[in-house]
Amino acid sequence: MPSPFTAGTLISAGTIRSTPVYNTGGEALGSIDDLMVDTETGRIAYALMSFGGFLGIGERIHPLPWAVLNYDRERQGYVVPLTRAALIDAPNYGREDAPRWGERAYEERIHDYYKTDRYWIDPMP
Amino acid sequence: MPSPFTAGTLISAGTIRSTPVYNTGGEALGSIDDLMVDTETGRIAYALMSFGGFLGIGERIHPLPWAVLNYDRERQGYVVPLTRAALIDAPNYGREDAPRWGERAYEERIHDYYKTDRYWIDPMP
Repeated sequence: MPSPFTAGTLISAGTIRSTPVYNTGGEALGSIDDLMVDTETGRIAYALMSFGGFLGIGERIHPLPWAVLNYDRERQGYVVPLTRAALIDAPNYGREDAPRWGERAYEERIHDYYKTDRYWIDPMP
Repeated sequence: MPSPFTAGTLISAGTIRSTPVYNTGGEALGSIDDLMVDTETGRIAYALMSFGGFLGIGERIHPLPWAVLNYDRERQGYVVPLTRAALIDAPNYGREDAPRWGERAYEERIHDYYKTDRYWIDPMP
């Protein structure tokens, strides 16, 4: 069966889910659990990375601004310039928690932590 | 359990999948099967809508430019200004086919059919 879901710069959301995430040192950090999409602009705001835990216990979801992730074709995964220690301090929540999406202060904290442009600001000049 | 995955204009890709699609006349057309994301810009290029068929037989996947879809909160689904007849003639493929993602001519045909801006052109002035 052909793999109809990746080519060029296009990739399906279904393929992105469960893609592993490494840091620049090659350490496996976690995997993409889902994406948060801004329906107004059709832009991905955050990749939700599951991090830590074992069989789901102790696992935390870390929203990563899309700009933080770089796809590495060789490794077939995303690479982020983050240490494990930096992730432990980063904004995160449990799978049963309700993150405060839509609250600008909450979302700003995520962007500030990773020092990226807010997703609601047009990055093009 | 709280529903952590929708608020404001943010929605998770996982929630978008399986969302029903109606036309402006209220007719159920299909449901969102997946999203095609442009990894370079972090923008959604297409929603892949499954259309027609019964128990998977005769079902076709229709790539819809993101701009064609409008979310209707009351109906909890996407509304598109398309008749069934317009969809039958629209670019589509079977689940086992390999659409030619990354081939500009193929992608242009989709945008031309729906008369929308190409996803690789910045919509902001």
